Amino acid sequence: MAIDYTKELENAARNMIFEHDPDLLIKMIVRMMVDKFKISHSSFFLRSQQKQGYLLIESCGPLKKKIPLDLICIDKDDVLIRFFREHRSNFIFGRQALLLSEAKAALKGKKLKPSIRAQLAQVLYQMELLETAVCVPSYFRDELLGLLLLGQKNNGKKFIDEELDFFVALNFHVAMAIRNAQLFKELEDELGRKHQLFIRTTVALAAAIEAKDHYTHGHTTRVTDLSMTIAARMGAKAKKNFEAKFLEDLQISSLLHDIGKIGVPEHILNKRNSLTIGERNRIKEHPMIGVNILKSIKELEGAVPGVKYHHERYDGQGYPEGLKEQEIPLIATIIAVADSFDAMSTNRPYRTAMGKVQAINEISRLRGRQFSPLVADAFLDLAKEGRI
Amino acid sequence: MAIDYTKELENAARNMIFEHDPDLLIKMIVRMMVDKFKISHSSFFLRSQQKQGYLLIESCGPLKKKIPLDLICIDKDDVLIRFFREHRSNFIFGRQALLLSEAKAALKGKKLKPSIRAQLAQVLYQMELLETAVCVPSYFRDELLGLLLLGQKNNGKKFIDEELDFFVALNFHVAMAIRNAQLFKELEDELGRKHQLFIRTTVALAAAIEAKDHYTHGHTTRVTDLSMTIAARMGAKAKKNFEAKFLEDLQISSLLHDIGKIGVPEHILNKRNSLTIGERNRIKEHPMIGVNILKSIKELEGAVPGVKYHHERYDGQGYPEGLKEQEIPLIATIIAVADSFDAMSTNRPYRTAMGKVQAINEISRLRGRQFSPLVADAFLDLAKEGRI
Repeated sequence: MAIDYTKELENAARNMIFEHDPDLLIKMIVRMMVDKFKISHSSFFLRSQQKQGYLLIESCGPLKKKIPLDLICIDKDDVLIRFFREHRSNFIFGRQALLLSEAKAALKGKKLKPSIRAQLAQVLYQMELLETAVCVPSYFRDELLGLLLLGQKNNGKKFIDEELDFFVALNFHVAMAIRNAQLFKELEDELGRKHQLFIRTTVALAAAIEAKDHYTHGHTTRVTDLSMTIAARMGAKAKKNFEAKFLEDLQISSLLHDIGKIGVPEHILNKRNSLTIGERNRIKEHPMIGVNILKSIKELEGAVPGVKYHHERYDGQGYPEGLKEQEIPLIATIIAVADSFDAMSTNRPYRTAMGKVQAINEISRLRGRQFSPLVADAFLDLAKEGRI
Repeated sequence: MAIDYTKELENAARNMIFEHDPDLLIKMIVRMMVDKFKISHSSFFLRSQQKQGYLLIESCGPLKKKIPLDLICIDKDDVLIRFFREHRSNFIFGRQALLLSEAKAALKGKKLKPSIRAQLAQVLYQMELLETAVCVPSYFRDELLGLLLLGQKNNGKKFIDEELDFFVALNFHVAMAIRNAQLFKELEDELGRKHQLFIRTTVALAAAIEAKDHYTHGHTTRVTDLSMTIAARMGAKAKKNFEAKFLEDLQISSLLHDIGKIGVPEHILNKRNSLTIGERNRIKEHPMIGVNILKSIKELEGAVPGVKYHHERYDGQGYPEGLKEQEIPLIATIIAVADSFDAMSTNRPYRTAMGKVQAINEISRLRGRQFSPLVADAFLDLAKEGRI
């Protein structure tokens, strides 16, 4: 058995950094014990916060002398686990690993305290049941994070110090990997929560602002959903999905596209009879009011063009700048289709809705005039498939 | 020199996990080279994305034969850096480290390609200038993350294979630590950006809603700043700072405390003459409208009580529930003082402002009646110090 311990330790560390998933490292180590160290079986139990116990992550062994498959979670108060939770085995045996043979010898001697002696006897009984020759615990500070159980060596020889020291060092790396992965997971969870908080608050505030415009209930959410569906369809058609950043900008931009309506007087937004030119111009200010509200927020840079240009038209007849064709940012052309479809298919103060089929026909009729052909085509595909 | 390499490697790994700051690990290693390995000097250069070069992180050496202190950044196109960026030294010398003596011998031989030979000659010249006997590069995938420069051994002997292998293994750990720290930093930066995005968007939307209420320009921001200042003062008085979560909730709650005004008609908010009872009751609905807007957002749970109860009074005469004294959530009692002070000291549709001094006197007069004594006292302390 020629094993380069430093290399193996390096490999363990490498795996630990690349995979923020300690399970993979644990599986690799458990298999290495059986394949390289020629040990009859090897198993690893990892602490699970949820289950209040230690879950079997991996169990290997050609001799089938391994942990029974139904033993997939050891209770945290099980005698084996409790022993390692309560005692650092290096305080008893001078090494962070418990050898069946050493423990047996210690029980025959008189050095052990009575309380430890009783507990250790139970541990030995359980190790024999599981045909385990060595237990190697993994700690982070005072917490037992995991436990590696190893069978006998296939050649029947005893474990040598160098091997045992290596197992301990390896399990130290496992503890570090588990801890590192936990820290990453905590940060990632926190990031997810923050993102949700941002999206949900934006949705709530947009909905509150929308509520001033009595006729547009649910408009913002529907436009956002439709924009995202159209973008996904465009990505599928082009066989090249949009980048995550673009999709996030599109989502935020769709949520905020009408935010500027907060600056339009309520009586104009809710007027039942037709608007005067002056009133119509007040409404046409809403994209620029929206830009003014959001322009100081650096992180929304990518979302602002959708707010600013969602009333531009492909033929240049839109507002606020009369941009046309490729001059209009893609994000705005997508929101334009989603927004117009939703406006046409829901009631407005000045008219009743035209019905879904008629609204789809309008998008088709205005393809290349009001709407970007690329976006309109994706929308019409979805309509054909009954997904609108 | 008896060094336990496995222990040292373990220490390196331990430091790497506990400190998400590779600089600390690098400093420890640089010092270890000089103190334990008795090397004349040791320096580490770490890649800096911003500076387009490699920054000197640490330089040690009792013989003063060390990197000149003014050499704090090596350009990425410097000959030494370029060599390690372009060549893995193990392809040339079978080891991920460059020994001055080995390189000299290689230059005398005929095995090297002419292009490498020319480059290597320049590298050797520079190593001699810097009195460097060994260079150990750290890579992540194909990127040169850092470079460790070592002087001669103090006893004049040659480096042995075991030492060199250990330096390489150690530098591998450094590379992992750097990479790990970078990943953490990226996640943490992303988290900071998301938080800023959330706060800034909330500020912008709250300001937009506030803009409907012509007389409250800047009210939300001022109330938020004042709430946070009062909370800090209360923490200082009690010699026990509030938890970060409470302060975050207070910030968000202050930003959103008047969000429900979006549901109060503009003509009532901006009425110049005094309000009818019916109109006054409409305005009193704003805390509950705010709650309804925000209640579905699980992450805002902690902020909602401030929105709901910021018009409660200590004597139970407030709204919406007439809570009194300790029944009123702390977060709301803080916002109540900040909100009232700002309302009194700014113009309103129905009256002009009363001036700062008079407003402070009002808070004092209403301490224990309208306002929680604890909060009012912190506010009055601030006022005495001229910080209001």
